Formats: sequence, C-alpha cells, structure tokens
Amino acid sequence: MAEKSNIVFIGNKPPMNYVLAIITSLSASNAKGVTLKARGRAISTAVDVAEITRSRFLKDLKVDKIAIGTEEMPAREGENRSRMVSTMEITLTKE
Amino acid sequence: MAEKSNIVFIGNKPPMNYVLAIITSLSASNAKGVTLKARGRAISTAVDVAEITRSRFLKDLKVDKIAIGTEEMPAREGENRSRMVSTMEITLTKE
Repeated sequence: MAEKSNIVFIGNKPPMNYVLAIITSLSASNAKGVTLKARGRAISTAVDVAEITRSRFLKDLKVDKIAIGTEEMPAREGENRSRMVSTMEITLTKE
Repeated sequence: MAEKSNIVFIGNKPPMNYVLAIITSLSASNAKGVTLKARGRAISTAVDVAEITRSRFLKDLKVDKIAIGTEEMPAREGENRSRMVSTMEITLTKE
C-alpha cells in the first residue's frame, strides 16, 4: 500500500481545492505519487491542477504518465441514449 | 518533411471540425502522424477529438505521446498582469 499512488478525482471546483487535496494526500501517507482522474470538461482543470502543483508547490513532482480514454455514461433522465465521455489520468510521482 | 507530424491546433469549434482536419491532413500528406495542440479550456476538446478520431475513423492511429505544460499569455486589455495558461499536446501516429 505504501507503494501505491493516491487518487484524486477532479471535478468542477476551483483548481486550488484539488491542489490542496494533492498536497494533503502526499504528506499524510508515504505514497510515492498521486493520480489525478478527470472526465469531460474537468480534464482542462486536471491539467491546471497538475501544472500548479508542480510549478508552485511540490517542485520535486514530475509527470510520470498521462493516459486518455473514453467511458460510457448512462443516459440522463429524459434521454434514451448513453453518452460517451472522454477521460484522462495524470500520474505525478516524486523524483 | 515526409517524416514529420502535421500539427492541428484545437480551439473552440465543435470536435468534428478538428476530426475532419486530422483525416484530411493525414490523407493529403505522407506524414506518419499528427500532433494536436490545445490551450486552456480547449484541452478537453483535444482529448475528445483524439478519442473520436481513433475510435470511429482511423483505427490504426495510436496515442504516441501526451505532454502538458504552461504558457504565459500577455495581459488582456484592461488587465495589468500576464496570465498562465495550461497547454497540452497529443501526438497520434500510424501503427
């Protein structure tokens, strides 16, 4: 468990909320890194969060892996087709 | 030149516009791949474009490289500070 990355899900809150979540999660555990997961419009926020964390706060973090993909979301009420939504995962690890 | 990737800049138009630009650019040249470049909110669109192109149209394309970064933009009129904006590049190449 000590070796695994923590996961932070990025949503629609301001980027600094997630930056703080990353800093807290890394200092509270002895994980080697953290993975940001985002879907749809939150993908841009995830990139902002990764860049702010790296350039202003934890300068020893580096971008280890970035993956993109697609997920099927169940249809919303009143719609009868499921929707495809893009996903992104950014893994930051300590050097 | 034949070996270099074409570049498609992603902005605020609907994703399908850029998907068509990628298909055209790859069929008009003998480039091995194409690089999508996006800034700020358009980053989510770039991921959508990459995923749509790969899953629906050019199934032999694979994601070769994804890079994120930060760029300084000049201050807008009426503002006196430059702004930092996140950037992303996705390189798709033919297998």
